[in-house]
Parts: sequence; structure tokens; C-alpha cells
Amino acid sequence: MIINYVTKNKYKIMLANKIFKNLDVKIEQVDLETPEIQSLDCEEVSKYSCKYACEKLNKPVLKNDSGLVINALNGFPGALAKYCEDTIKAEGFVKLLEGKDKSCYWIEVLSYCEKGQEPISFTSITKGTISDSVREGRGYDYDKIFIPENDTRTFSEMTEEEQASFFDDKAYLELYEYLKNKENK
Amino acid sequence: MIINYVTKNKYKIMLANKIFKNLDVKIEQVDLETPEIQSLDCEEVSKYSCKYACEKLNKPVLKNDSGLVINALNGFPGALAKYCEDTIKAEGFVKLLEGKDKSCYWIEVLSYCEKGQEPISFTSITKGTISDSVREGRGYDYDKIFIPENDTRTFSEMTEEEQASFFDDKAYLELYEYLKNKENK
Repeated sequence: MIINYVTKNKYKIMLANKIFKNLDVKIEQVDLETPEIQSLDCEEVSKYSCKYACEKLNKPVLKNDSGLVINALNGFPGALAKYCEDTIKAEGFVKLLEGKDKSCYWIEVLSYCEKGQEPISFTSITKGTISDSVREGRGYDYDKIFIPENDTRTFSEMTEEEQASFFDDKAYLELYEYLKNKENK
Repeated sequence: MIINYVTKNKYKIMLANKIFKNLDVKIEQVDLETPEIQSLDCEEVSKYSCKYACEKLNKPVLKNDSGLVINALNGFPGALAKYCEDTIKAEGFVKLLEGKDKSCYWIEVLSYCEKGQEPISFTSITKGTISDSVREGRGYDYDKIFIPENDTRTFSEMTEEEQASFFDDKAYLELYEYLKNKENK
């Protein structure tokens, strides 16, 4: 079976094919503009885009969405994280959390949809805290304020490899189990 | 001609029918769930929803979207304003703008689409500033921090009638001119 993964990130394709290598499944990258709906909830966003792509392509489709969930901000920015990078910026989040609970997590939701069906979702989470100040280094704005659990450094203070070691592939492993069960039926 | 206005706000229907009363046009409210895409730009959001509704209903459609554009935050929260009310909240915006330019504006974009055509848009703007502190009173979170131009009070410190007097109906008047020109062709 061929599954179309709607993503521009080639690393995600490699990862999926590596995890699914024992299945009769091939993940192929597809470039398709899908509408991303307004919501803080990555599951809602990725399911909508996934279903849209599945109806357009008439094939099994995989679509992911990721976001940052800050507990003291009631889940903000969630799936809207990318709109805050050039607006609120890293220092804005530091300011908003002054004197508040700094716990948060990155979430990645992987949605899978087959023709005529409703999408299903699998979730990976990387827990952490927002730092007290912006810590320069490599990476994006969020990397300068996100400290993963069991470390004291922000992602910006690590090498790319160190940062990658915090990536949680639970969503992909759960999708693997789901597809394996389908094959065996 | 009947135009379907996709809105839950009956006041908007009354306003439109009042402004268009000299035209051979009747505005009718329609309840339809339309996808709202992720963007800071109210024009992009309202055009997408408008076109979607027009294709679904096969009739001329009107759809609006509004947002708050804060200059020092590069246009944030824009069309995403409603996701900040329960998350960043009024006090969050006060904090984000400490020591910064407080200028901002409310924007309402009215999009109009006819079958098989691209939507066009008209814009109303209400300029103002964000207050130095949250000022209690009536209304929503944003009303407690938005001071319209030529006043010193926030909307929350005014009566509903006073607040309504700051509403700019330019978008509706421009759409009126557009429709009138079409009738005369």
C-alpha cells in the first residue's frame, strides 16, 4: 500500500519509511496545499487537512501538525505557534510567563485517513519548561526558550543531534501498530 | 437579487439591509459552517470562507472577518484575536506592550463573491491605542484595553451606544457603491 504523506519535510518521510519498513507500506512525499483551519488544537488542524487531502488525492493520506502548548496560557499558542514567532517572539513569551507556571510541551499530531473514512490521530509529546530569559544559540525563536524535561539547557544551547534525541516518535510507532493490525486482519 | 450573508450576528444583517435599501438587493442571513483558515490577515480569512460558502450555496455570498492589528507586534493578533481572549488575555497584551508603541486598529473585512468568480473585499478600520492597564467595565477582554482615537476612555468605560458610534461602516458603503455600479451596467 502506498500512503501519501503531505509534508515538505523530507526527514519525516525518511523517519516514517524507517519505522514502517517491516510493513507492506511505502510512504511517498506529496506536495499539496491543504487549508489549515484556525484552532489551538493540533489534532483538529491536522485531521481537517488530512481529510481534505484524502478527498483530493483519493488515496490513503498522512498529515502532521505540531504546536507548543503552554499550560499557564490555557494551551496557547498551540497549533498557532508559527504566527507568534515574528510577532510575540521569544521575549514576549518570557514576559507573559513572568511569575507564572512555566510548564509546557511540544505536541506533534499525526493524522491518517483512508478514502471515505474519518481520519484517526496519534500523538507525540515532548515535555519541558519555558526559560526565564531568551538564551541565544542556534535554531528558531522557540528553541531559545524551550528547556526539555531532564535537561537544564534550551534547545538553542544544544547541538542539532542532541536536540533530535528529545524527539518523541510515539505517534509513528502507534500508527505502525495500527497499520500492522490492519494488515493482519 | 438575494445575497446570503454568512453570519450569526443579526445586527450585521440589519445594517446591511439598511445601507442597501435603495438597491434591488435583499440580504438574508444564512447559517453555514465555513472553514476559517490560519492567517493574521482578515482579508485572506474572509475571502477563503466567502468563496467556500459561495461554492456550497451557489448564490452570491457575503462573509466578514474582524481582528485587532497591533503595530508593535507586527500585526498580531490580527484575525487570530479570538484565540487570545482566554489565553493571553487583556493583561497579557498590556504586558507585551510595556515600553512599546501602543498604536493599533480594529479591522473588519467584508468579502463578496458571486458564482464562478473570485471574491472581492472592502475594509473598515477603527484606529486606537492599547491602554497601560486593564480598565474594568462592560464588554469583552479587548474592550478593557482598546482606546479609540479621539477619546481617552476604553470601550469598557463607555455605554454600548457610545462604543457603537465608533463603528466604521466604510466597508458596507463601498460594497453599496460596487453593487449600485453593477445594477447600472
